[in-house]
Amino acid sequence: MGRGAASEAVVLLSGGLDSATALAIARERGFRCHALSVDYGQRHAAELAAARRVARSLGAAEHRIMRVDLAGIGGSALTDRSIAVPEAPTSGIPVTYVPARNTLMLALALGWAEVLGARAIFIGVNVLDSSGYPDCRPEFVAAFASLARLATRAGVEGHECRIEAPLISLTKAEIIREGTRLGVDYGETVSCYQADETGRACGRCDACRLRRAGFAAAGLADPTRYRSP
Amino acid sequence: MGRGAASEAVVLLSGGLDSATALAIARERGFRCHALSVDYGQRHAAELAAARRVARSLGAAEHRIMRVDLAGIGGSALTDRSIAVPEAPTSGIPVTYVPARNTLMLALALGWAEVLGARAIFIGVNVLDSSGYPDCRPEFVAAFASLARLATRAGVEGHECRIEAPLISLTKAEIIREGTRLGVDYGETVSCYQADETGRACGRCDACRLRRAGFAAAGLADPTRYRSP
Repeated sequence: MGRGAASEAVVLLSGGLDSATALAIARERGFRCHALSVDYGQRHAAELAAARRVARSLGAAEHRIMRVDLAGIGGSALTDRSIAVPEAPTSGIPVTYVPARNTLMLALALGWAEVLGARAIFIGVNVLDSSGYPDCRPEFVAAFASLARLATRAGVEGHECRIEAPLISLTKAEIIREGTRLGVDYGETVSCYQADETGRACGRCDACRLRRAGFAAAGLADPTRYRSP
Repeated sequence: MGRGAASEAVVLLSGGLDSATALAIARERGFRCHALSVDYGQRHAAELAAARRVARSLGAAEHRIMRVDLAGIGGSALTDRSIAVPEAPTSGIPVTYVPARNTLMLALALGWAEVLGARAIFIGVNVLDSSGYPDCRPEFVAAFASLARLATRAGVEGHECRIEAPLISLTKAEIIREGTRLGVDYGETVSCYQADETGRACGRCDACRLRRAGFAAAGLADPTRYRSP
């Protein structure tokens, strides 16, 4: 615990459904939440506007957007406009995978956590209803936690910063039910890989399909605004 | 191996003595070197100018500078001008430690390596004559290598990207002798934590002390330009 009553946590907040739920869970666990969004040149910039809304609604103590130019290295449909976002299921790791994205976002979170004296970093990764990215698996999260203990002053001095992935083994429906219980307004979130500037979703990309199926399986109304029905 | 005869490597290049030597070693080992410098808001921006010179002199195939605003989170004398750079030895991890810096730089290198299909990332960390940063230790490098295998498409598909830290167990004098043998012009490099705009060194900070002692122990002339003798 820090100086005050609440312990600090850094929460990675993309503006999508999963990270909004992770923020709600961190808050319920009593953390004072410092939300971090990373502007990595993603084509779905509407996510960052969504992150601002969600941070405010869910009572984050502060919200920072850090800029890293991953578009300069390309290699993903999310950062390179010459690579199309698939609108049908694909096999293997999809082209929407952004090389080393979660490693990079956790590294930024770790640096900020150390400056804040935070005891936890929350990340909304999950594997059951996901796109199959390598850096969303439990073994990735565990490896980053091991690294964090060795990489930082805090780790060397015995103040561990835990890496919390509270959604890791939940289905999309379970995530939505948990977030709804905690008061998340999913109408504020944007999951679509190619949302328009106002945050309206395409309804066809992998992220849209997983999200829509999740609301259906949870038996809850889907508040997503779609460009076409 | 890639399409051509040479395998690709990403080499983290700060513009200092160690990373210049790591680049020379990577080249000698036959890699086609993609040099990566990270502009993280460090106060010693003369390092980036030095990195450009070194990349050219040592025949890097290309050199990119990626910008990440660590000054926004502060917490280090290298990114926060309100924290003074110590000019006498200190105990423990010094205030020049930048939270999670090497984790972040390796994450950026890992993303670029994946896009390039590179088989190795070179980083010039070492422990014997260093400032005592946690993220310069062999156990940190090993933990990042484990993470890299889990974090990427390449790792999942069995194409490992090795993390090479060829200086890890060398003294500063040994590093300087090896680089000199490989043709590194250390007059092009800047190690000082508070170099002036033209790259002249203070001669008093930890980085200057380690560098000066290294040339003395190696029995080689020190080409560093100091502001005062």
